Amino acid sequence: MTRQELVEQINLKQSFLCVGLDTDLEKIPAHLLDTEDPVFEFNKAIIDATKDYCVAYKPNIAFYECLGTKGWESLKKTLDYIPKNIFTIADAKRGDIGNTSTYYARTFFEYLDFDAVTIAPYMGEDSITPFLAFEGKWVIVLALTSNKGALDFQFMTDSKGEELYKKVLRKSSKWGTPDNLMYVVGATRAEGIGEVRKIVPDNFFLVPGVGAQGGSLEDVAKYGWNQDCGLLVNSSRAIIYASSGTDFAASAEAEAQKLQQQMAAILAAR
Amino acid sequence: MTRQELVEQINLKQSFLCVGLDTDLEKIPAHLLDTEDPVFEFNKAIIDATKDYCVAYKPNIAFYECLGTKGWESLKKTLDYIPKNIFTIADAKRGDIGNTSTYYARTFFEYLDFDAVTIAPYMGEDSITPFLAFEGKWVIVLALTSNKGALDFQFMTDSKGEELYKKVLRKSSKWGTPDNLMYVVGATRAEGIGEVRKIVPDNFFLVPGVGAQGGSLEDVAKYGWNQDCGLLVNSSRAIIYASSGTDFAASAEAEAQKLQQQMAAILAAR
Repeated sequence: MTRQELVEQINLKQSFLCVGLDTDLEKIPAHLLDTEDPVFEFNKAIIDATKDYCVAYKPNIAFYECLGTKGWESLKKTLDYIPKNIFTIADAKRGDIGNTSTYYARTFFEYLDFDAVTIAPYMGEDSITPFLAFEGKWVIVLALTSNKGALDFQFMTDSKGEELYKKVLRKSSKWGTPDNLMYVVGATRAEGIGEVRKIVPDNFFLVPGVGAQGGSLEDVAKYGWNQDCGLLVNSSRAIIYASSGTDFAASAEAEAQKLQQQMAAILAAR
Repeated sequence: MTRQELVEQINLKQSFLCVGLDTDLEKIPAHLLDTEDPVFEFNKAIIDATKDYCVAYKPNIAFYECLGTKGWESLKKTLDYIPKNIFTIADAKRGDIGNTSTYYARTFFEYLDFDAVTIAPYMGEDSITPFLAFEGKWVIVLALTSNKGALDFQFMTDSKGEELYKKVLRKSSKWGTPDNLMYVVGATRAEGIGEVRKIVPDNFFLVPGVGAQGGSLEDVAKYGWNQDCGLLVNSSRAIIYASSGTDFAASAEAEAQKLQQQMAAILAAR
């Protein structure tokens, strides 16, 4: 999906919501466990219920990988089921030396046909550029993550006062363009979002941490907005586990709609 | 496998060689492509040929993942085939927020029963400690990688003169112990290995970059040695692709034996 198509979808749906498909056999409703492929049945119901309110889906690959070949089958079926006008993100946090990154890219961009994949930047340029070589695909680099451990290294400051996450932004933004490069910026660090926006004014941000992790949608919009909205705000647990009963899909729909309405209000005000 | 068992194997085999199973359908001998599972057939032959000369195997997960469910099946069969007295490393370079890291850990430590997994440190403590919670298993944190992109961020220096890779070592070494925590330290940065050894005197290093990438075994030993050897030196392409003909296994054996003999000489001298 191109940037223009993504922006069109945001305007059409009045939403910049990404639904995180962190589908966990220990958390999905018990009545699904008797089906042949509980993970896919759950995802299918969640997609049917939320697809009018979101512009992106983001399966976290850890939840599929841990189920072995069965998990990869569920993931592939899920990808095939997502409507083509919705942006798809493999939350995989990969990254390896050049040649090997190309193989990871093939996994997510060819075998599974995701639009985007998340990448950890520690190994530098040649771990990221192989993903950027795939035409029409996107790389989403971890910049400022929403977890507590973000404080361990991401805020390390050099002698000129530049933090590691800013160095990651400044350098990596030259390896791609706003048409194929986004950044992960956690909602739990709202003022940090403003710092990131100054360095990369045009790139989209994938923003986790609203809801369960405590980030505020209003703050994210206040600090992160750009001329094209520039935000994909992710919510996983608050939507997909809104209910653990047979009404899980309807509850997910209600949660997704609630967020979409808040987003529509923000879009109208901007 | 415990540290003591690993050290025993090193002394027994007079080797600290790790063979990288970066098995690539585009590079394995053509006659294997007609078999039902070419990746496993190749690995099986390589393991049979090299198992007396190495103490560890390290499949890079990218090469299996890109084949989808079939790749995961080949990987699982390979793991099951490796003799239990050989240390196994999932070169996966994973890392995510706490809960999600636990799922990655389950994949590699339970579903596949690897001894160790490589982890990228960008997200900090809570992305690493969930892996360390698995009894009898190992985490191998990326510290100083062998690729060109290592220069982009790993040598960033704070106002007190401490580089990022040293900060990663200093902080992360408190999250585990030399009994469950190793570091990736590239052979292409021999003097860097000495710097790493000063900060973490007791931990084992997984050292890629000898051979194809230009690192020297003698330099690695000179700078990285400790009282228990403390080194697992990896070679992938130079061994497994020593020949692309029907003699590939014999050629791999010869290359592995050559490295083992160099290692035996180093062990004897120390």
